[in-house]
Amino acid sequence: MEIKELGELGLIKRLAGQFTPGHPRVVKGIGDDASVTIQDDSQYLLCTTDTLVEDIHFSLQYTPSYNLGRKAVSISLSDIAAMGGTPKFLFTSIILPPATSTDFINLLYKGIKEMALEFDVALIGGNTSSSPDKIIINTTILGEVPKDQVMFRKGASVGNRIYVTGRLGDSGLGLKMLKESQKSKVKSLPLQAVSRGQNLKNKAILKHIDPLPRVLEGRELAKKKLATSMIDISDGLISDLRHIAEESGIGANIWLKKLPISAGLKKWLKGHPQYIKLALSGGEDYELLFTVPKGNAAKIEALSMKLGIPMTHIGEIVPKRCGITVLDEKGDIFHLADEGFEHFKTD
Amino acid sequence: MEIKELGELGLIKRLAGQFTPGHPRVVKGIGDDASVTIQDDSQYLLCTTDTLVEDIHFSLQYTPSYNLGRKAVSISLSDIAAMGGTPKFLFTSIILPPATSTDFINLLYKGIKEMALEFDVALIGGNTSSSPDKIIINTTILGEVPKDQVMFRKGASVGNRIYVTGRLGDSGLGLKMLKESQKSKVKSLPLQAVSRGQNLKNKAILKHIDPLPRVLEGRELAKKKLATSMIDISDGLISDLRHIAEESGIGANIWLKKLPISAGLKKWLKGHPQYIKLALSGGEDYELLFTVPKGNAAKIEALSMKLGIPMTHIGEIVPKRCGITVLDEKGDIFHLADEGFEHFKTD
Repeated sequence: MEIKELGELGLIKRLAGQFTPGHPRVVKGIGDDASVTIQDDSQYLLCTTDTLVEDIHFSLQYTPSYNLGRKAVSISLSDIAAMGGTPKFLFTSIILPPATSTDFINLLYKGIKEMALEFDVALIGGNTSSSPDKIIINTTILGEVPKDQVMFRKGASVGNRIYVTGRLGDSGLGLKMLKESQKSKVKSLPLQAVSRGQNLKNKAILKHIDPLPRVLEGRELAKKKLATSMIDISDGLISDLRHIAEESGIGANIWLKKLPISAGLKKWLKGHPQYIKLALSGGEDYELLFTVPKGNAAKIEALSMKLGIPMTHIGEIVPKRCGITVLDEKGDIFHLADEGFEHFKTD
Repeated sequence: MEIKELGELGLIKRLAGQFTPGHPRVVKGIGDDASVTIQDDSQYLLCTTDTLVEDIHFSLQYTPSYNLGRKAVSISLSDIAAMGGTPKFLFTSIILPPATSTDFINLLYKGIKEMALEFDVALIGGNTSSSPDKIIINTTILGEVPKDQVMFRKGASVGNRIYVTGRLGDSGLGLKMLKESQKSKVKSLPLQAVSRGQNLKNKAILKHIDPLPRVLEGRELAKKKLATSMIDISDGLISDLRHIAEESGIGANIWLKKLPISAGLKKWLKGHPQYIKLALSGGEDYELLFTVPKGNAAKIEALSMKLGIPMTHIGEIVPKRCGITVLDEKGDIFHLADEGFEHFKTD
């Protein structure tokens, strides 16, 4: 058998099954956004590691190295955010072909440095290595969370409301646009203008090449103990919801009409309604998906207002036997061809 | 400029210069075998991350996946050992082409699992990802060390003796042999027999494809406070000694005749004396190089006896202005063409 038949999830499950640590200091090993180990009397240590591979996770044809550096840090920050933690220390392994220009690496590190400063993480280690061809960036982030505030994928219960931060689908739309215009000079993207929201198309592209991790939002949700489970959306809404469902032993109903869609994607959906799938399974939104007891709904609304970030009620947790269902405008079942990105799967 | 002109050391220096954390919890960031941060009142947290890239660090033509799995863990364990620490938690990122066989990954994980068990580290995280072509394995290990026992590259002082554990050069010899017989079926190497030391050639090969990290030795040296500085030999004796010299602000004399050479390499040197360079700059020995005040020499001998591992006095720390010198049998300066492996450098 080849790995492409097994898929990433199958592989991770197989591996996790082989390693049942039973270590007294391990609270959660493989199978959540970050590992959780006991650091001291009051804090858990969180650790997450992520890898970006050229031509798998990004293409240099449309990813400026500056944004690549930022994204490499963001995706790991997002994992710490999903645990309700505070990121502390960053490690980067950079694998580069010997012919890489120093300009490229200077801009890459400019991006890494900016994100590290912005989220107050200290870059304190890593390594560099030559690559036969592709660029590979591995980031590891250590974080901390008070023991009584840690959030897991496990914990959702029937009747909980399902929420998501920000907007869904822009990253998928951005990627689609980038793929369709591979010849465009993204390096000259007016990123400052985009960050002021003047250009819907560029906004989607920026969301893909340079997503903002929801560290503050995750931390606030954890500190106020408003949520019962949490994950970040990296593979896609439904795919990541399935992780919560499996870990929590529940099912879920999602309402299509409640999905928070950006003005840009909405405009685009008018001509291409089938691309609602970008919001369901596009992946790489790096928004937080979390479940909340009904009684906390008003507090979520207040937090959303306070932080200036949408937190949208998109569905409900139902019993496990009901599975995961997406309901359309009429309340009928909406069928989704694929749920989200999975490595190794070739179909 | 391209990175190959700058070299790995130039790159790391440039990066380290950009990140001067000034973080109150950071004891040592970039520039040692592992980062050192304050964990609690009594312990430091250590973190190291390493990457093995196919056709840069290993070739599947002569590396069985089982040994590759073991080595991926060993090289990070070796970094924790060099800090005097105890390894605790392991994270692995595995990047594989979709056509990789499940047999390959099963054996890879068998090796990872064995090393984790042998050194009592819990594998608690990581990720898998598809690769366009090459196999890449990133390992991160978290370790701990009591605050008063941590070992740095910094700390060596003039008059200290220089020691090394085990034997030098076998890994380089093994690699040379493997390269010369790329068609040999290493997968059927009688590893059990090799581990009983019956075959000098296979012993060198095993040392290259499956080195044993000196975790116990590093820990004992730190606990007994016998050494003033320590590093593991990954790039090569002289190259790694230079790291100690730079961090400690000293120079060093190394005596060629005192280098601990295995019976296998000795035999081979008779016909090829120039390959003494394998012991000086071959790299990947994963032995510990450390400096010791003269007064501790008897204690080092006793520890070496107790652990059953050679700890050989190979030279002395001298003032910085004297630089690093290798002296031959007659006390003359031995000139070394290249000091050790450095990524990106093409000459």
